[in-house]
Amino acid sequence: MPKIQRLSTTDPDFNTQLDALLAWDSVSDSAVRQRVAEIIEQVRQRGDAALCDYTSRFDGWQPTSAAALELPLERLRQALRAIPAAQREALDLAAARIRAYAERQRLQSWEYIEADGTLLGQKITPLDRVGLYVPGGKAAYPSSVLMNAVPAKVAGVAELIMVVPTPRGELNELVLAAAAIAGVDRVFALGGAQAIAALAYGTETVPAVDKVVGPGNIYVATAKRAVFGQVGIDMVAGPSEILILCDGQTDPDWIAMDLFSQAEHDEDAQSILVSWDAAYLERVLASIERLLPGMERADTIATSLTSRGALILARDQDDATRVANRIAPEHLELSVADPQALAAKIRHAGAIFMGRHTAEALGDYCAGPNHVLPTSRTARFSSPLGVYDFQKRSSLIMASPAGAANLAATASKLARGEGLTAHARSAELRGDPG
Amino acid sequence: MPKIQRLSTTDPDFNTQLDALLAWDSVSDSAVRQRVAEIIEQVRQRGDAALCDYTSRFDGWQPTSAAALELPLERLRQALRAIPAAQREALDLAAARIRAYAERQRLQSWEYIEADGTLLGQKITPLDRVGLYVPGGKAAYPSSVLMNAVPAKVAGVAELIMVVPTPRGELNELVLAAAAIAGVDRVFALGGAQAIAALAYGTETVPAVDKVVGPGNIYVATAKRAVFGQVGIDMVAGPSEILILCDGQTDPDWIAMDLFSQAEHDEDAQSILVSWDAAYLERVLASIERLLPGMERADTIATSLTSRGALILARDQDDATRVANRIAPEHLELSVADPQALAAKIRHAGAIFMGRHTAEALGDYCAGPNHVLPTSRTARFSSPLGVYDFQKRSSLIMASPAGAANLAATASKLARGEGLTAHARSAELRGDPG
Repeated sequence: MPKIQRLSTTDPDFNTQLDALLAWDSVSDSAVRQRVAEIIEQVRQRGDAALCDYTSRFDGWQPTSAAALELPLERLRQALRAIPAAQREALDLAAARIRAYAERQRLQSWEYIEADGTLLGQKITPLDRVGLYVPGGKAAYPSSVLMNAVPAKVAGVAELIMVVPTPRGELNELVLAAAAIAGVDRVFALGGAQAIAALAYGTETVPAVDKVVGPGNIYVATAKRAVFGQVGIDMVAGPSEILILCDGQTDPDWIAMDLFSQAEHDEDAQSILVSWDAAYLERVLASIERLLPGMERADTIATSLTSRGALILARDQDDATRVANRIAPEHLELSVADPQALAAKIRHAGAIFMGRHTAEALGDYCAGPNHVLPTSRTARFSSPLGVYDFQKRSSLIMASPAGAANLAATASKLARGEGLTAHARSAELRGDPG
Repeated sequence: MPKIQRLSTTDPDFNTQLDALLAWDSVSDSAVRQRVAEIIEQVRQRGDAALCDYTSRFDGWQPTSAAALELPLERLRQALRAIPAAQREALDLAAARIRAYAERQRLQSWEYIEADGTLLGQKITPLDRVGLYVPGGKAAYPSSVLMNAVPAKVAGVAELIMVVPTPRGELNELVLAAAAIAGVDRVFALGGAQAIAALAYGTETVPAVDKVVGPGNIYVATAKRAVFGQVGIDMVAGPSEILILCDGQTDPDWIAMDLFSQAEHDEDAQSILVSWDAAYLERVLASIERLLPGMERADTIATSLTSRGALILARDQDDATRVANRIAPEHLELSVADPQALAAKIRHAGAIFMGRHTAEALGDYCAGPNHVLPTSRTARFSSPLGVYDFQKRSSLIMASPAGAANLAATASKLARGEGLTAHARSAELRGDPG
C-alpha cells in the first residue's frame, strides 16, 4: 500500500512542507544541453544528411533518402479508415467539441477613430506555419494531437507540420488518424532534438516553421528551450498535477479514482487532495487502499502517490482556497456543493473542474477546453494552450494631419527629455497641421 | 558620410543578402551565462546580504542596510513635483493615451451553457505581482516606465515592483516621476542580474514576483532567460528596427529623419527603406547626406546606417510587401497614398504606422499603442506588450449529470485507446446520469 504524505495547514511548518512537496527542478543537466546543442548545430550545417544519420542512430531505421522521412497524407487517411469505428467516432466527437470551444477563443481585430481623425487599432493575424511535436512510444496520445492541432487550424495557421519519431519504423495508427481528423498538413517521421532543430531552422526537405508546440522527453524540451527566439515555443511542461478540494460529500471512490487518474501518467505526476473534513480524508484513504490493487497501472500509481502525493487537512473552505491559490495547480477539481461560488475565489489554475460530476478525465479528452495546461505553479502567470497561441497582434496607428500635430507636441517634449532629438525632429516635421 | 547598403529585389542573390543584413545573434556567451548563474545562486542563498554586496561592487554605493535599498513612494512624488511643468504635462498626456488604448485590450471572462446543462468557459485573472526592470544610466527612459507599468495596472496587477540601478546613488527624476504617474507600488534601487534574481526568488526585503518585464543590458537579459519558468518574462529584445515602405511621394526629409530616429538609439539599431521608385531612393539619400551633419547623435546614426541600414529597390508595391512580410519588422511605416489597403496585406509586424503623417516617433511616446514590440523577426509569432501579458486564463468546466454521462462515454473510449484505464474509470464513475 502506498504511504501517502499527510499534511495539515495548522502545522506551523506547513508552508515549508508544502514547498518541499511541490518542488520540481526542471533544469536540464549540462551534458544533455551539450548534446542537444551539438545535434542542433549538425542539423543547421548538414540539413537532411544529419536528419537521416540521427534517425538511423536513435530511431533504428535507415531512411532510403530524405524524401522517405515524409509520410504521405494518404497514409493518415488509411489509418483513419483502419481504426475501430468506436474509436473513430470518439475522436470525431472530441475534435468537434475541442473546435467548438476553440472558436470562442479566436481573437478579433479592432480599431477606433479619435475626435481628430486619428485611427488606432489592433490587427490579428495567424502564424504562417507551425510545427507540432508528437512523441512516439508509450506516451503517444491521439488526444494530444487533437488538443495541439485543432486550435492551430481554428486560428487559421496555413501549414501545420507534425513530426513524430517512428522507432524501428513503428507507427501509431490512432495518432495518425487523429492527425487526419485535425487537418495536419504534412507529417515527417522525425523525433528528438533533431526534429526540433529541423522545424526551427529548416532543411532541404523540412520547411522552417514560426512556432513549435507539443510535449516531448528531456531532449525535446531542452531543444525547444534552445531554439526559443528563433521560433516561438509553448511552455516547457513539468509533470502533470491535480489538486482536489472536497467538502467531504463526494463518493470517496470517485475522488480516489481521480487521484489515480493523475498518478497513472508517470511516477513524477502529483495528486493532492485537500479537505476540511478530517474523517473524509480517512474514507478516501480507505478507498485508495481498496481500489489500488485492481488498477492496471497500480505500480506507477503507488510510486507517484508515495513520492509526490498528499492528503491535506485544512481548517475550512477558505483555508483550502488559500492552499489552492498558493499551489496554482494545473488541474483543480472543486468537488463541493457550490463550485461556482468557490471558483470565483480561485486566482490561479490551469483548468477548474467544477462539481462532483466533473472528473478531470473528461477534460483530458472531450469536454472542449484544452488539456495542454500550465504546470509547476506557472498558472500564476500563464494560460492553457489556445487559439490565441497561434495568433498574434500588430498595433495600428494612422494619425490624421491634425492628430499628428497634437501628438507631435507631446512626443517632441518627451523625446527631448530623453535626449533623442531625431525622434523629436521626426515628430516635429509632422507638427504643422496646415 | 555613411555608406548605406543598396539592395535590389531583382538581384538573384537578394534573399541571401537580405538574410545577411537581418542576421542578429542574441546568444549570450558562456562567460556571461556563468557569471549570471553565480549571481542568481548567491542571491538565492544569501538574499539581502548578496544584494548589498553586489550593489556596492557594481553600482558603487554601499547600502546602510537592506531597507536602504527601497525608495519610499514619497521620493517618487517629490520627483513628480520637481520636474518642469511641460514634462509633467507631456507625461500625464502620454499616460492617459497609453491607458485608453490598453483598456481596449483587457481580456474578459466568458462562459456558455450547452443543451445538456454543461457549463464551459474561460476565466480571466490578473497576475498578483509583477516586477519591472528599468535600466539606469543613458538608456533610462521615462516613456518605457509608462509603457510597461500602465498595462500592468490596467490589467489589475495588485503589486507592481520596480527595480532601477542607481549608479553612485544617482537617480533619474523623470523616471521616478513616470513611476509615480503609472502607479508603481514599490521601488528598489537595484540593477543587473541580482535585481532579476531578487524579483524571481525573493529575499528578506524584496518580494518574489510572478513575472518580470522591462529592458536591460546583456546581464539582465541573460538573467531573465535563466529565471524563465520560475517566473514569466516578456520577450528578450534584440536591437530596435524600422522598415519604411514608401511610394516616393513623401517629403524625403521626413523619411530621412524617420530613419535617423531609429538609428540614433544605438549602433546596432536597423533602419531600412524600401521603395519601388528608384529616383526617390536617391532623393532620400541626398536628404540623409544633407541632414546628418546637423544631428546631435550624428556619430551613432552614421555607424548604425553604415553597418545595419539599407535602401532597397523593389519592383512594385506588392514586391515591397513581400519584403516586409519576410522581414516581419518591429516598426513598419507605410508611407503611401492608401496605407489601409496596404496594411491589409501585411501579415507580420509589431506596429504598423500608416500614412505620411504617422512618424514612428509618435508611437514611441504617446499615440497609445505600446512601444515594447517584437524585434529580430519575432513578430512572425509574437505580439506587442499589452494588458493581456498581465492577465491569464483558466478553463472552466462544470458538467451536469447528463453532460457527464455523455462525455464519459467518449472519454472512456479514448482513454482505453491510450491505455489510461484510471482515466477511463474515473469518467465511467460519472457515467450514470441517474
